[in-house]
Amino acid sequence: MSFLDEIPWNKEGLITAIAQDASTGRILMVAFMNREALEETVKTKQAVYWSRSRKRLWRKGEESGHVQRLVELRLDCDADAVLLKVEQAGGIACHTGRESCFFRKLEDGRWVTTDPVLKDPSVIYKS
Amino acid sequence: MSFLDEIPWNKEGLITAIAQDASTGRILMVAFMNREALEETVKTKQAVYWSRSRKRLWRKGEESGHVQRLVELRLDCDADAVLLKVEQAGGIACHTGRESCFFRKLEDGRWVTTDPVLKDPSVIYKS
Repeated sequence: MSFLDEIPWNKEGLITAIAQDASTGRILMVAFMNREALEETVKTKQAVYWSRSRKRLWRKGEESGHVQRLVELRLDCDADAVLLKVEQAGGIACHTGRESCFFRKLEDGRWVTTDPVLKDPSVIYKS
Repeated sequence: MSFLDEIPWNKEGLITAIAQDASTGRILMVAFMNREALEETVKTKQAVYWSRSRKRLWRKGEESGHVQRLVELRLDCDADAVLLKVEQAGGIACHTGRESCFFRKLEDGRWVTTDPVLKDPSVIYKS
């Protein structure tokens, strides 16, 4: 019995995956994993997600270099979400070049961007 | 234009919602919100989710008293997840009586329960 068998994969075969910076506790991003992605994440100690838009495994950092080294993996009570504590290479998790994907905050009824772009995406994603 | 209109609700009309303890940074739980739940959360400053199993609004703490006071609300880059920083009443977010729903950790290929039950669920949920 593998730890993978204890997960009731949803009808798309996925589970929600949250990445949290292991040192600061900041939530970096939310994505999905399928069985293969979670297995490879544990095996390689690097975060691998399932890209729903590209319909393929997404080895986080494969283009940007912003890989996430797995420090700890947790499962929630109903086993429909995993929490990855990670070391974020480059200190940038978001494709916009920001530390975290949660860079907008609700202030007086409006979403306000509170976080700076640390690196221009055109530099991160060289074509 | 409301902040609610900027969210591309999924086909079930939901968005993923993550609750994080505002003081410790610990991830407490993951659930879903529909438009009404998010609107009420912002209005009342208390977390309201959508219960998919019960198909109704779930005012967190309505039975247990373990309400979550909203401190900060954030939205991610593709607007399919919100992050709530909360003050967790009673220090218990999970229906199992634990601080966090993420009480299992992967150790040597097995999910191991690492967190204590702080209060017996039969005491929390008096019938």
